[in-house]
Amino acid sequence: MQADILQELEQALAPDRILTQKEDLLPYSFDGTAAMKSMPGCVVFPESAGEISACLKIAGARKIPVVTRGSGTGLSGGSVPVEDCIVLCLVRMDQIEEVDPRNLTLLAQTGVITKAIDDAAAEHGLFYPPDPGSMKISTIGGNVAENSGGLRGLKYGVTRDYVMGMEVVLADGEIAWFGNKCVKDVAGYSMRDLFIGSEGTLGIITKVLLKLLPRPQARRTMLATYDSMEDAARTVSAIIAAQIIPCSLEFLDQVTIRCVEDYAKIGLPTEVAALLLMETDGHPHVVAEEALQMAEIAGEHGAVDVHTARDEAEATRLASARRTAFSALARVKPTTILEDVTVPRDKLTEMVHFINEVAGRYSLHIGTFGHMGDGNLHPTFLTDERDRDEMEKVEKALDEIVARTIEVGGTITGEHGVGLAKKKYLAHQFSDPSLALLKKLKQTLDPANILNPGKIFD
Amino acid sequence: MQADILQELEQALAPDRILTQKEDLLPYSFDGTAAMKSMPGCVVFPESAGEISACLKIAGARKIPVVTRGSGTGLSGGSVPVEDCIVLCLVRMDQIEEVDPRNLTLLAQTGVITKAIDDAAAEHGLFYPPDPGSMKISTIGGNVAENSGGLRGLKYGVTRDYVMGMEVVLADGEIAWFGNKCVKDVAGYSMRDLFIGSEGTLGIITKVLLKLLPRPQARRTMLATYDSMEDAARTVSAIIAAQIIPCSLEFLDQVTIRCVEDYAKIGLPTEVAALLLMETDGHPHVVAEEALQMAEIAGEHGAVDVHTARDEAEATRLASARRTAFSALARVKPTTILEDVTVPRDKLTEMVHFINEVAGRYSLHIGTFGHMGDGNLHPTFLTDERDRDEMEKVEKALDEIVARTIEVGGTITGEHGVGLAKKKYLAHQFSDPSLALLKKLKQTLDPANILNPGKIFD
Repeated sequence: MQADILQELEQALAPDRILTQKEDLLPYSFDGTAAMKSMPGCVVFPESAGEISACLKIAGARKIPVVTRGSGTGLSGGSVPVEDCIVLCLVRMDQIEEVDPRNLTLLAQTGVITKAIDDAAAEHGLFYPPDPGSMKISTIGGNVAENSGGLRGLKYGVTRDYVMGMEVVLADGEIAWFGNKCVKDVAGYSMRDLFIGSEGTLGIITKVLLKLLPRPQARRTMLATYDSMEDAARTVSAIIAAQIIPCSLEFLDQVTIRCVEDYAKIGLPTEVAALLLMETDGHPHVVAEEALQMAEIAGEHGAVDVHTARDEAEATRLASARRTAFSALARVKPTTILEDVTVPRDKLTEMVHFINEVAGRYSLHIGTFGHMGDGNLHPTFLTDERDRDEMEKVEKALDEIVARTIEVGGTITGEHGVGLAKKKYLAHQFSDPSLALLKKLKQTLDPANILNPGKIFD
Repeated sequence: MQADILQELEQALAPDRILTQKEDLLPYSFDGTAAMKSMPGCVVFPESAGEISACLKIAGARKIPVVTRGSGTGLSGGSVPVEDCIVLCLVRMDQIEEVDPRNLTLLAQTGVITKAIDDAAAEHGLFYPPDPGSMKISTIGGNVAENSGGLRGLKYGVTRDYVMGMEVVLADGEIAWFGNKCVKDVAGYSMRDLFIGSEGTLGIITKVLLKLLPRPQARRTMLATYDSMEDAARTVSAIIAAQIIPCSLEFLDQVTIRCVEDYAKIGLPTEVAALLLMETDGHPHVVAEEALQMAEIAGEHGAVDVHTARDEAEATRLASARRTAFSALARVKPTTILEDVTVPRDKLTEMVHFINEVAGRYSLHIGTFGHMGDGNLHPTFLTDERDRDEMEKVEKALDEIVARTIEVGGTITGEHGVGLAKKKYLAHQFSDPSLALLKKLKQTLDPANILNPGKIFD
């Protein structure tokens, strides 16, 4: 990075909040996505929207790319730097500014850890439902920029459903605020919805006003085991068809179960083909009734066993089987390529079957887990990026899985974002006029193309 | 309208689907908004997205404004024609194309009546919650274009929360589809959210894919009466603070109660200052418990009486008190100016008090009702547009109410849209960079400014 630009950035922030040495930059050259890496020119740590605005003005004047990140847990390469860019790392903007129990809202700076948001809500008996797998380390700003999902998406929806307002620094450095504490507001276009899930390409989210819910009074966690993955998928479809919308319906296949057991020693049955983690929460009466119904449906659809957690401790332990799935799989082989295809729920069985078939055909090692209740599967390729032949097969297998996903009316990404990883597939899902419109919006909001360029589309 | 343009439109559609005679155009010169009227050049009735595309190409080539409407029930002048425009009336696109109980979705053409959507869902034990006051006559396309609210918004949210996908004809005539049946999808910017609530200014919504819910098993309806409006507002705040989110918390003041009773003979107590219609739905156990809690809270906050509907028939009768409020008020004086200010819920008492104070100060006749649980009030001015002096006072009173709304963090419109009626206030709510961004989006999506020009902003 040129000395004069660094000097300007130092004036805008403070010298001790700029990293420029190669060894300091290295940890910021990648995110949670496998096999993607690129060195930034510098990393800056702004502490306010005003400082971010100053950085963007400096970057805009020289057309230097700016890549924003929080904790860097992204799984689609969304926060992987562009070569020689300025990385805006927002982890210092980490204050919860207000919890408002009368209006059920919480105002947080962008760098607050997601779990801290739910913890702060819990102190008032309130609840912030979105719980991406990364919630203990990911930032709320990253969650909003990626529109993160989570385990409770089935009943509670995703991050988008909880964003009432936000402060955004626009590409030209202007600072805008959209939204308010009103539960209904139809004044003007819904700008906040445009920034949610825009992956840092349209503006920089610096503050979010979140909606909270009353904390559920009770929950029940159950583990159903299966001799076939298809039976687990059929159970999920049957539960939805019975008009039950539980909190979570999470799925692990045998590969994943064995990795998790090996890693976390939870006591999972490693001989079964699949397990379904079912959780219902809410009013104690409803919870008891739904749990009973779900256990029955699981039994009718081939479950070998349905076990109900005896207490909160066991429930947490069972849930951790699902929460550690990705970490457990990531230990097995040097490279873990995590897919995120999502299909309409009635296509689940078909999709699960197809993924198995593809794995067999290419002799690949795939562990599949995911939010089955959302039709959101994470087939995970356990591979080694140094093995060129195998990587080629992985690529082909991925192409087939994505093609089939689109064919059955699914989406290339349910919760991880497009970033770099899914960019090549976007045109398969979007028609020409639809994709052209996305690009026009990018052009309108960021005419100099400095905000996370090359992500989502070229 | 010039003969050659009409000829082109006739070729694109069919001669019997174009109105050009003044007496035929008259019913299309206004919508549900008071004191706004303008004559279109013609009205066309397309039957497909292809026909709409053809119309837009014709209009675009000559830069003729196009105003889209359904049943014309809008309350902010959003579908009032621009002088000499082409009105696209979409009521013939009225087919429900699919109900999919396995994925809990419904696909409908834009001109389907909203109530017909919920009726079709009900046949499968499913539920389309958004219920704007106009739902028996308004179209789903209009609801989506205005992001309509309704009586159940408190628990179930608004139209936006139920739109999973849509077909849109863009200004240049291209036909685009956004969304799918996946409950999670983060591929690309959320274009559907941009079109929802865009009031016909960014594109023409021709088809919508809607999310359905399981139909609630039980409901309970209660009527609490008060000697003061403030007590009713305090009850609402206390219910929310107690973390109860019922289906509806609807409010009528004395003026409205008397008009409704006079009109609908429901048997309402006409001597009370205010009444609160409280409805909870869902699982029978939860309903019973919440009803009890709400009755207690009402009692603690000054309710003179809390009456629970004995059966479904009485519940429907009580609910109709609220549903007929607007019609009942509209009978009293020649002109009914319906406000739609919305405030954070903890500002309700203050706002109700302020509206009363303003009415007194200007000696105006205001009936107030609304979705109190959402902080969404409909102070309704009963006046006569021919009385210039009074209309001036109405204008001033409105300005004061809107100013105070914004001051307490509210919005100029909770569910009716900006249209023509609220246009002058938009800049009070949006900062300069925010408003500039709205205008840039309009310019990007509709560079020739043919789609409902002059609505939302100039």
